Amino acid sequence: MRPRRPGPTVRTRVTELRPGSDGSPTSGDVERRREDRLITEEPLELRLEWPGAAARRVWVTMRTPGHDFELAAGWVVHEGLAPARDGVTAVAYCTDVALTPEQDFNVVTVGLAGAPDRLPHQHDALSAGSSACGVCGSDQVGEALARRAPAWTGDLPSPDVVRRLPEALRARQQLFERTGGVHAAALVTAEGELLVVREDVGRHNAVDKFTGARVLAGLSPAEACLLVSGRVGYELVQKALAAGIGSLVAVGAPTSLAVSLAREGGLVLHGFTRPERTVRYT
Amino acid sequence: MRPRRPGPTVRTRVTELRPGSDGSPTSGDVERRREDRLITEEPLELRLEWPGAAARRVWVTMRTPGHDFELAAGWVVHEGLAPARDGVTAVAYCTDVALTPEQDFNVVTVGLAGAPDRLPHQHDALSAGSSACGVCGSDQVGEALARRAPAWTGDLPSPDVVRRLPEALRARQQLFERTGGVHAAALVTAEGELLVVREDVGRHNAVDKFTGARVLAGLSPAEACLLVSGRVGYELVQKALAAGIGSLVAVGAPTSLAVSLAREGGLVLHGFTRPERTVRYT
Repeated sequence: MRPRRPGPTVRTRVTELRPGSDGSPTSGDVERRREDRLITEEPLELRLEWPGAAARRVWVTMRTPGHDFELAAGWVVHEGLAPARDGVTAVAYCTDVALTPEQDFNVVTVGLAGAPDRLPHQHDALSAGSSACGVCGSDQVGEALARRAPAWTGDLPSPDVVRRLPEALRARQQLFERTGGVHAAALVTAEGELLVVREDVGRHNAVDKFTGARVLAGLSPAEACLLVSGRVGYELVQKALAAGIGSLVAVGAPTSLAVSLAREGGLVLHGFTRPERTVRYT
Repeated sequence: MRPRRPGPTVRTRVTELRPGSDGSPTSGDVERRREDRLITEEPLELRLEWPGAAARRVWVTMRTPGHDFELAAGWVVHEGLAPARDGVTAVAYCTDVALTPEQDFNVVTVGLAGAPDRLPHQHDALSAGSSACGVCGSDQVGEALARRAPAWTGDLPSPDVVRRLPEALRARQQLFERTGGVHAAALVTAEGELLVVREDVGRHNAVDKFTGARVLAGLSPAEACLLVSGRVGYELVQKALAAGIGSLVAVGAPTSLAVSLAREGGLVLHGFTRPERTVRYT
């Protein structure tokens, strides 16, 4: 029997504990058993192959199942391993006979049109070398700038449009509504229309997914605006630059390196965005 | 001149954009230039060495500078590379002559008493192999259980204590107060006393830091309770089990794999915690 593909949420039984009737610590707790929904978290392994080369593992991430092919294709484009147009030739679940049934939907192979210029940075890999490449902020900024795509040159959302975006996103966050444990990212036009909305337990995955959605549809991921439900660190700005985004709007706070990179890369960056205000950092 | 050690926050100039006086989109925006504080995000490279072995790079993370030695020591213990007591013999900033001045405080070497049983999992590394070890939830749960430390056997916080923890943590979050962009983790006694509070741009780093703080002080990281300001994924539960924590209390939601691992590992897990309720998942 073929295993069921894991869904984006799972049911579970929980116990809710509220203070006793008079609210005092000594009056005991009111316990209520009920059903709850959790956001699904499962590992995904990504393999790359290109003409003349066997598939090789390049990345493992914890993600929410669903839109796996988009996640894989978007990650590849954000890493600069393939051009957004025509660089990705195929995406499929791996059919390796060595996989157990549980792994069937957790391994994705991306086919590239040609060998990448370089393979992903092996920061996390063991290395006996003493080179400390990339371990200061300015190196990281330089690395991200080298990977940037041609940037969006059209209109950007006005401040008034920007301030209304978080509410529009919230209305589209179906998994958040059910589980409360998930981030969202959306591709947005200058007029504030949400073109693609993706949710994931990892905020970087949500951004990979929407770029992948555009790439697999044959569209450019370069758009007016990227909207994210959380905070903004270096890696999100790097992905926005790699996709050619014009402005990045966050509900939460940006980090120091996110602001430095946005300024160097010419990306308009907004944080702490809500109906009554937004803060522009660039 | 020796460069200044980077601080946990940096100043920057920002523009705050509010709706015009009558609040209508056509009345224009009120722009206010002001100073703001950002949470610092900088890479940290961790190297390991032990008697008879040259230092080797094992990890790079984006972190908020401060408590770097704790971060390094805690990560090593959570990864199961050294026992919490007497496993870590030295922690120092690297004095490699090949480092640029900007990197001086971004490379930390941890000395181990002996060779680790295994080196960190090379999930992110390039690999031509077809083995997909670890890419399903049950493998990940098994891997984390194998690394668990002897668990806390004393009292755990009562539901009443649990519900009051997020407010106590918030009162101690100095960096959050200044930047709004940072996570916090605390080690807590059964009575609700916050023993160690650490903040970081990465929520996993904050947990590494408090375990490291205990390890470097010669204390066991096994305590009644770990309290975190955000959500709980697989990796946080894995760290709690590796440290020997008795219960994990989160302000936010847990994921499916976090709940599975906590149940298997005998860790009491609370989520959605606030003064009027908490939800117990195990």
